[in-house]
Amino acid sequence: MSGVLYGLGLGPGDPNLVTIKAAAILRHVPVIVYVTPMRNDKPTVSLARSIATPHLIGEKKEISIPIVMVSDPTSGRQIYDEVSNEISGYLESGQNVAVLCEGDPLLYGSFMYVLDRLKDNHTVLTVPGVSSLSAAAAAANLPLVTRNQSLAIIPATLSEDEIKARLQVSGSAAILKLGPNITKVKKVLGDLGRLQRAIYIERASMEGEKVLPLSDAPDNAPYFSIILITNAETD
Amino acid sequence: MSGVLYGLGLGPGDPNLVTIKAAAILRHVPVIVYVTPMRNDKPTVSLARSIATPHLIGEKKEISIPIVMVSDPTSGRQIYDEVSNEISGYLESGQNVAVLCEGDPLLYGSFMYVLDRLKDNHTVLTVPGVSSLSAAAAAANLPLVTRNQSLAIIPATLSEDEIKARLQVSGSAAILKLGPNITKVKKVLGDLGRLQRAIYIERASMEGEKVLPLSDAPDNAPYFSIILITNAETD
Repeated sequence: MSGVLYGLGLGPGDPNLVTIKAAAILRHVPVIVYVTPMRNDKPTVSLARSIATPHLIGEKKEISIPIVMVSDPTSGRQIYDEVSNEISGYLESGQNVAVLCEGDPLLYGSFMYVLDRLKDNHTVLTVPGVSSLSAAAAAANLPLVTRNQSLAIIPATLSEDEIKARLQVSGSAAILKLGPNITKVKKVLGDLGRLQRAIYIERASMEGEKVLPLSDAPDNAPYFSIILITNAETD
Repeated sequence: MSGVLYGLGLGPGDPNLVTIKAAAILRHVPVIVYVTPMRNDKPTVSLARSIATPHLIGEKKEISIPIVMVSDPTSGRQIYDEVSNEISGYLESGQNVAVLCEGDPLLYGSFMYVLDRLKDNHTVLTVPGVSSLSAAAAAANLPLVTRNQSLAIIPATLSEDEIKARLQVSGSAAILKLGPNITKVKKVLGDLGRLQRAIYIERASMEGEKVLPLSDAPDNAPYFSIILITNAETD
């Protein structure tokens, strides 16, 4: 009897925003896997692992995926090959394995690299989670979209022209992956005359959560930050 | 001491996809409010209320918002004025009130109509929930977006040209609010040569969940259905 691979969405950061389903799986699964971002060759805190902490019971086998956050998308390929092989071994021995994911596993999550390598030969169950986008909107009490409006989810790593094109067709937008790209995003929104409606949210649902007009946001935004530009009609 | 107004995201349908935080609020809150869709002048089942059912303890005051699902967006205005007044009375008497929302409260949710009317005079706490979009992706084990990709969330109620414009700037898209509009969406995707990558998901996370190629989808899709067109790079 083969084990099940879980892609476990753990939500935006607050351990109470974990779903009942994910918490139950965390309690019982014998093997957990999570990404640990590397900085200057040293592991930093894994957000997914820290969200899971209060929900874990007993001894688990833990597999850390050390990921260097760089722009070259292929650099993680070998690491994911190796980790997927290791996971495959546990599944074949009949043990269930949970890949811990901050936010939702399939929205910019690294779970998809494991999923893609293992889905053809194993049973995979993805458990959706609350996204950082929903948490940011909640922190600001800001309706994202109503009725016939569309929403564009845009990584700030795109070029000025690409960001502009996406903003121009959509009344509401969420811009992620800010970091130093926030300066570029401010310029684009200024060019489009949409700077004033833009709200900056940092660490939504976590300690140190901030909600600011974009004009007051720092010039090098942390990874866990997001810009919302909305235009919801609520009358 | 005034009560707190909660906008309570209850997730896509499976009661186990409710967050720990929302479940705790459901247990203790004395007043719950939810939309009940009307059909032929008769109330139908409120999905939000039914997701909440296993989490409710003891007697609650229940306020149903009877909403006729029509295209005229202003028809609900008077109802929301009345309900907001009623909610305001409970809050002023010091009782907490939870507006139950399927999915996420601020992503096409009707909570925003209450929020807009009450936020200036009351404490509002929005609890984000798992969206139907994330549940649909999970049901299909389909990565929505990776790396530098953008995602367009598009209501099928828009015109052919509006849908096309949004699809053309975005590699990945989710199309909601299908119903009879699914025929129009199929035509647009056919015109753009993107029909073959489109996946249709019905009742994600609920009994009767279906995942089909769009070409096999019914011509009058139910309200709880979604189309995903993705192009994630996972190598």
